[in-house]
Amino acid sequence: MYTIYGDVNSGNCYKVKLLAEQLALPYTWVGIDTLKKETRSIQFLNKNPNGKIPLLETEDGKCLPESNAILHFLAEGTALLPTDRFEHAHVLQWLFFEQYSHEPYIATARYIVRYLRRPPELEAQLQTKMIPGYKALQVMESHLSSQPFFVGGRYTIADIGLFAYTHVAEEGGFELANFSAIRQWLERVRAQPGFIGIG
Amino acid sequence: MYTIYGDVNSGNCYKVKLLAEQLALPYTWVGIDTLKKETRSIQFLNKNPNGKIPLLETEDGKCLPESNAILHFLAEGTALLPTDRFEHAHVLQWLFFEQYSHEPYIATARYIVRYLRRPPELEAQLQTKMIPGYKALQVMESHLSSQPFFVGGRYTIADIGLFAYTHVAEEGGFELANFSAIRQWLERVRAQPGFIGIG
Ligand SMILES: N[C@@H](CCC(=O)N[C@@H](CS)C(=O)NCC(=O)O)C(=O)O
Ligand SMILES: N[C@@H](CCC(=O)N[C@@H](CS)C(=O)NCC(=O)O)C(=O)O
Repeated sequence: MYTIYGDVNSGNCYKVKLLAEQLALPYTWVGIDTLKKETRSIQFLNKNPNGKIPLLETEDGKCLPESNAILHFLAEGTALLPTDRFEHAHVLQWLFFEQYSHEPYIATARYIVRYLRRPPELEAQLQTKMIPGYKALQVMESHLSSQPFFVGGRYTIADIGLFAYTHVAEEGGFELANFSAIRQWLERVRAQPGFIGIG
Repeated sequence: MYTIYGDVNSGNCYKVKLLAEQLALPYTWVGIDTLKKETRSIQFLNKNPNGKIPLLETEDGKCLPESNAILHFLAEGTALLPTDRFEHAHVLQWLFFEQYSHEPYIATARYIVRYLRRPPELEAQLQTKMIPGYKALQVMESHLSSQPFFVGGRYTIADIGLFAYTHVAEEGGFELANFSAIRQWLERVRAQPGFIGIG
């Protein structure tokens, strides 16, 4: 039995929940509200000194933060993480792409618009996210225009990692209408066994 | 024989070079100058549509971008990547921490100061990097105050990933004087067999 600390509306936390459901892993969900600074309590910082959710805790009290490290840990030995050495490397490549070139623009734009209600003092910062965010979407679009999933022609944790914030990109002001390969891929992900929505 | 496309002064590229040297892997280094937009050429974009270095190419023409995915790929099966499932997960945790909570502040501050020569129009952006950059250093400092390396008590690719930009943090304006555990760890990394410096 795992304990997952998270916020059901956060894409980083949803990644872990989606995978846990698809692997039918037993877990307890502990809701954490970042706006109420619950990631800043001494108790939480003892579990993750970086003060961020999601966080996975094992029965014997071992803690693992970082959404994509959790995905990799939970998916090891399952069909959702390829064992072929190069395919495995490509899965990690896309997960690092997600954290470096995608999430900082697409997730944080959504955060400013949806959670912080787009305050005027963050408008300039929001605008700086548009060009790099669209660039990440363009990289995904070209890749998906010749293949159904990110790696090896089948659904893996690379798709889970990238689905989390891409499917709600419009909430941050990114328009997906012109990204037809992405939109078809979103539907393929939604059609996977055990799929659950965010929230 | 691998081909590594990179810039010897970039920490992300140096990570890969350091590991390749320490594993005594045969490789050809192809210098790429991002300031001359060499990551934007059609040839390069064919290899990495995200237009970033480092990039690893195998003899049969397979390409792998993302510095930390390359570290993981090259270190698999060596002493630098633990096989214990939880230690392996912690290595990935620190590599994702590096890309999300460390590099965007510490590496980019160095880039603005050292490569772009600290132009006045980027001063405000540079200042926004100080608090989160110091926060990342503080997380590292607490972790290293009770252990010699990031994972499992020994040198792994988590140390390589975090060494790359931490040891040149001062070039971006971060003062390491008060981080004694980090400074001792930097020395332990420098003392590893096959160590080479950046540049
Ligand atoms: N790289 C981390 C990012 C996690 C993250 O940014 N979590 C946010 C919620 S989506 C958080 O905990 N924010 C609170 C804070 O940073 O104080 C991961 O992938 O898990
Ligand atoms: N997440 C990437 C980041 C790589 C990166 O930002 N590389 C820089 C040089 S350090 C680059 O290629 N910049 C050129 C550009 O983005 O156009 C990695 O870890 O490899």
